[in-house]
Amino acid sequence: MRKIEHIGIAVADLEKSNELFAKLLGKEAYKSERVEGEGVETSFFQVGETKVELLQATRPDSPISKYLEKRNEGIHHIAFDVADIHSEVQRLKDAGFEILNETPKEGADNKLVVFLHPRSTNGVLVELCQEKNL
Amino acid sequence: MRKIEHIGIAVADLEKSNELFAKLLGKEAYKSERVEGEGVETSFFQVGETKVELLQATRPDSPISKYLEKRNEGIHHIAFDVADIHSEVQRLKDAGFEILNETPKEGADNKLVVFLHPRSTNGVLVELCQEKNL
Repeated sequence: MRKIEHIGIAVADLEKSNELFAKLLGKEAYKSERVEGEGVETSFFQVGETKVELLQATRPDSPISKYLEKRNEGIHHIAFDVADIHSEVQRLKDAGFEILNETPKEGADNKLVVFLHPRSTNGVLVELCQEKNL
Repeated sequence: MRKIEHIGIAVADLEKSNELFAKLLGKEAYKSERVEGEGVETSFFQVGETKVELLQATRPDSPISKYLEKRNEGIHHIAFDVADIHSEVQRLKDAGFEILNETPKEGADNKLVVFLHPRSTNGVLVELCQEKNL
């Protein structure tokens, strides 16, 4: 865990939230990206070495749709930057954490990502991410 | 907003969660601190330039007690480091954000802190913090 790569925030309306976070953070989102596999449209704001990622669902079975139904808008996950996602998954599995996808999948922003189940991490949805093409 | 100063996580049992996060992050908390004014016992883990702050309530009227009752354990707030908390509060107020305490109060870790109401920030409890004795 080298740094917090980003904090993911579930939003209902990405356009409105882009404006809101631009006012809050005093800067515009530096990019937007659709991740088909996850059913999300995302935008990113840089804050120091970390990013704020806004996530809007693109379909009803998106994890973000389900989250909004259950908990409403708010902080959705924390993503940690790791050097080697495979060894980190193994380390956490050995330590008793529940891995949601042991095979890393494609995330936004050129990343391989793995999620840990919140029931093994104090209710926090934890994402590990490793930059692709290392 | 110079960086994400910390991410606050509400926990029911600080001792257990300290162990859990030490396993998750691969390092121990570097300090613990009780903040009487907020009714919380906290611990801090450094991750890159950011910290993970665990928060346990010390009394039933603590904001953390209320949060646990309503939402259970999980991510409680994001704190942004600011250079001048007074000018930042004024800027955000002018931009239409709802300030919970306009007069900065004492936070953990030698900080002056101000909170924004989640209803003005997409359900995210936002904290501004400025290092004291600047």
